[in-house]
Amino acid sequence: MKYSNLVGKTRLDAPSDADSVNARLLTQAGFVEKLAAGIYNYLPMGKKVLDKVCDIIRDEMNKVDGQELFMPILHPVSIWETTGRIKTMDDVLYKTKGAGDKDFVLGPSHEETVTPLLRDNVNSYKDLPLSVYQLATKFRDEPRAKSGVLRGREFGMKDMYSFHLTEEDLDEYYERVSEAYFNVFKRCGLKSHIIEASGGAFSDKFSHEFSVETPAGEDTIIVCEKCNTAQNLEIAEGKIVGPDEKEEEERALEMVEAKRGFSVEENAKLHSVPESKILKSVVYEVEEVGLLGVAIRGDLNVSEVKLENYLKKQLRPASPELLKKHGLVQGFISPVNMPEESKIPYIADHSITNIKNFVTGANQPEMDYVNVNLGRDFQIDDFTDLVEVKSGFECNKCSSPLTEMKAIEVGNIFKLGSRYTDAFKFKLTGKDGTLKTVYMGCYGIGTTRLVGTVVEASHDENGIIWPKSVAPYMVHLLTIGNDDNVNKHADEIYNSLKEQGIEILFDDRDESPGVKLKDADLIGIPLRLVVSKRTLSENSVEWKVRAESDSKNIRISDLDTEIQDFLSN
Amino acid sequence: MKYSNLVGKTRLDAPSDADSVNARLLTQAGFVEKLAAGIYNYLPMGKKVLDKVCDIIRDEMNKVDGQELFMPILHPVSIWETTGRIKTMDDVLYKTKGAGDKDFVLGPSHEETVTPLLRDNVNSYKDLPLSVYQLATKFRDEPRAKSGVLRGREFGMKDMYSFHLTEEDLDEYYERVSEAYFNVFKRCGLKSHIIEASGGAFSDKFSHEFSVETPAGEDTIIVCEKCNTAQNLEIAEGKIVGPDEKEEEERALEMVEAKRGFSVEENAKLHSVPESKILKSVVYEVEEVGLLGVAIRGDLNVSEVKLENYLKKQLRPASPELLKKHGLVQGFISPVNMPEESKIPYIADHSITNIKNFVTGANQPEMDYVNVNLGRDFQIDDFTDLVEVKSGFECNKCSSPLTEMKAIEVGNIFKLGSRYTDAFKFKLTGKDGTLKTVYMGCYGIGTTRLVGTVVEASHDENGIIWPKSVAPYMVHLLTIGNDDNVNKHADEIYNSLKEQGIEILFDDRDESPGVKLKDADLIGIPLRLVVSKRTLSENSVEWKVRAESDSKNIRISDLDTEIQDFLSN
Repeated sequence: MKYSNLVGKTRLDAPSDADSVNARLLTQAGFVEKLAAGIYNYLPMGKKVLDKVCDIIRDEMNKVDGQELFMPILHPVSIWETTGRIKTMDDVLYKTKGAGDKDFVLGPSHEETVTPLLRDNVNSYKDLPLSVYQLATKFRDEPRAKSGVLRGREFGMKDMYSFHLTEEDLDEYYERVSEAYFNVFKRCGLKSHIIEASGGAFSDKFSHEFSVETPAGEDTIIVCEKCNTAQNLEIAEGKIVGPDEKEEEERALEMVEAKRGFSVEENAKLHSVPESKILKSVVYEVEEVGLLGVAIRGDLNVSEVKLENYLKKQLRPASPELLKKHGLVQGFISPVNMPEESKIPYIADHSITNIKNFVTGANQPEMDYVNVNLGRDFQIDDFTDLVEVKSGFECNKCSSPLTEMKAIEVGNIFKLGSRYTDAFKFKLTGKDGTLKTVYMGCYGIGTTRLVGTVVEASHDENGIIWPKSVAPYMVHLLTIGNDDNVNKHADEIYNSLKEQGIEILFDDRDESPGVKLKDADLIGIPLRLVVSKRTLSENSVEWKVRAESDSKNIRISDLDTEIQDFLSN
Repeated sequence: MKYSNLVGKTRLDAPSDADSVNARLLTQAGFVEKLAAGIYNYLPMGKKVLDKVCDIIRDEMNKVDGQELFMPILHPVSIWETTGRIKTMDDVLYKTKGAGDKDFVLGPSHEETVTPLLRDNVNSYKDLPLSVYQLATKFRDEPRAKSGVLRGREFGMKDMYSFHLTEEDLDEYYERVSEAYFNVFKRCGLKSHIIEASGGAFSDKFSHEFSVETPAGEDTIIVCEKCNTAQNLEIAEGKIVGPDEKEEEERALEMVEAKRGFSVEENAKLHSVPESKILKSVVYEVEEVGLLGVAIRGDLNVSEVKLENYLKKQLRPASPELLKKHGLVQGFISPVNMPEESKIPYIADHSITNIKNFVTGANQPEMDYVNVNLGRDFQIDDFTDLVEVKSGFECNKCSSPLTEMKAIEVGNIFKLGSRYTDAFKFKLTGKDGTLKTVYMGCYGIGTTRLVGTVVEASHDENGIIWPKSVAPYMVHLLTIGNDDNVNKHADEIYNSLKEQGIEILFDDRDESPGVKLKDADLIGIPLRLVVSKRTLSENSVEWKVRAESDSKNIRISDLDTEIQDFLSN
């Protein structure tokens, strides 16, 4: 392709509303253009990248015996009523009306179509297990579309659904798909982690997320590099590190004046102690329970998801108004000598058991206790793991330090059990003549999101750095100096590589070297070749790999071999 | 693929609501399944066929320098207001609301997105001409979805849009795309015709349709086999054939009693004359004109579209009530001696000029004139071509007989001129520094419709007959008799062909030969191979091409060569 003919040119400036690296670079380099919030056009180069991502996914899904099909976008509302998701997903569903006043949902996911489709197309228990998938467009009316193509309202997705006669068979297939997912992300040049999904108090789904490390990720994950495992921050487990003061002598409890702000930092500073010596209290409003205090070491945070999962109740931090109403003094709450009239139940994280002579609030404005000791000055009946793990904690398995990382969720897999098959009465008569439950799994990868993730994970200050596997072209050829001999050689190289079936973009514009080199970096094609008078004086071209900083000269006679080498590595 | 694993099996009975051959066969053979009226699931074999059709189209569009991109389904309503199509297409638009109460249209076509997209991505007049296309899903809320996948509400379409600096350049590209379209349909095994589109009085679009001959087509076209041209019935031209009675002697006008019905057939029978001797009158209600009589030879019909195009007015046949109100006697109207009080203007088709001694109504109930002659008994000032051409008419160019054929429209191409580029203010500064109009063409092929058309054009009473180019598999292997040796050889053939990359479906079920052979015919894979004890006794397999009636035996040792031959022809 000659750059002069290409639809989708680079732009000098990023669009003013680009809210993320992927939106900025993909738009500026001519891969996508926003039509509306969360709704993008894919220009020819963007379409090529998306196709390559989809081809990788297709290949891996075929390897796990997935059969590709294609389901409609318009879903009769009745099937969404059958599963009840018309209510539970109401806030993100696009709806439309058709002829005869019929109501439709624009599919955000296809459990509602695939389950009856398979029910009507599976004749015998012998047909199971089986797995079908599609690469299609989904709709989700996110309240706020953001992060470029990472969180779209109209977006590409691979969704696969598997059907099994036993839970064991589903478990086994679930593992096979996990492996396939790792392969997909690896082939896209990404380092992915599988993570047990965190859910709130009411989640009884069994599911995993696949996350990719990127500096600008929306999620935080906790990684053990040694075990090669990752956990979702919200439910991550790990060994707390910090001082062990069990042997420290308990000093006499004292109440002191404390003209300070509410933060742990200010508290530690005022009393000249490390933050770990602050006994922190966080008060929650828990459904059906009321107020609940949680005690934790001052330098650590409470994981609300862990707390919800422990209590099996929904909760939220108590508002200052609610604290006041209950007679609790914001910033000075502690389980030590609480006045009877404002007493609340307390639970604690294990982290407070190693510390002696805590500093904490005295349940009065601007008064603190110092030298507070568990057992002597306050009691807690209920200890559990409520801590939000952070970098420095140790892996429960190998004791290596854990690392906190920003990540983007690119895929997820669910064991749905019989939720949907029961709803659509999809059962099969087994060998023994009785009706058997059909177990179902579902497996998603956001395809357009994956394109954005590659950009988030692989770019520098000058532009995108496409991995070869998903690059729109393999070679970016350009000339320096509008010279007949230079142009002639560039044309020859272009035609020769094209004939060899190598995907090549030839910047044939009569532009300054600065503009062409800058655009090449921005677009991010893996290999850049420059032809100039200087290189031709040595019968060579300049060879620069986008992901590397150095360039070198290659003799034109060696070019074909070198490129074949480059492409096959 | 082993048939036992395939999702989408054959069914004994067609769905009761299948209203067409394609709906019946595609559903019964396991290619598609209806989700709602006009909305279909594509099961794995259906998806394969659709992919092959799309790949052929993609290849031909790339050959005419089309660049593939991908545009959204959700269109902000504002862009549809810009072109005014929010009103003119209102009855077929699906609409939805998104976050922030924003209104969207589900794209039935993409002029509204592609024009601003290209406006914002074309920097210079030097970038033109260019052409972009997509293979995507469209939505059109047809009042009645019918004919299976031929007329869907959600359907696949290839839509291409080209942009030019001059009308001549658009004309030239339009011709290139026409050629590409012929190639597409030919490669899909279809015989297509290009036809100037017929429009009513208000159509000023320049466009052509591509139609494929099929017995069950929705449209009628008039074909000259010799010139290899086709016309839309409604505006087809051709030389009228029939008696030349110019030399016949004019007999004396007579009024006779005529107790008859209103049809030409009854009239001719009553008077014992051929239908061509009836002077037929058809009365229309024409906007801004009122009633208008059209005289035509009795055995011919008036083309209302020709009449509209001639008058440049909208019209409809006058209702019996309106005729009566005007004093006209239904069934007995003629231009001969019309009573002054009910006189209406008359025009005539050229066909009446060759006939002498017509029979026609006498403008009184149950009274006819016989021996009516033009010029002597009635005058017509205005003659023109108003006849609906039919089989037997002669080609205006080569005088060969024309043939009336049923056909399905599978594609259309339009010269849009500057309608959309003007609406979106897409102009470019030319070489001379002045702003230039951008001319636009658009080119559609219904991809899912094309799948249905192939089935309509290529089937027999037993099932589908897929052309090799779009078949889901090339070889359908089956065994007769559940015999170890037979199974062993079938397995070997299956594995060997699969390893050679040949698309093969192996019916490995333990079913009766009758069921398996019937299913093979229904599914319609181009080549059927049968392994049985009998064929193995001659070291051979039975070889039957779906499109042919005879089978033969092929030695297993020759199988690979024969199949390669078969596939490459």
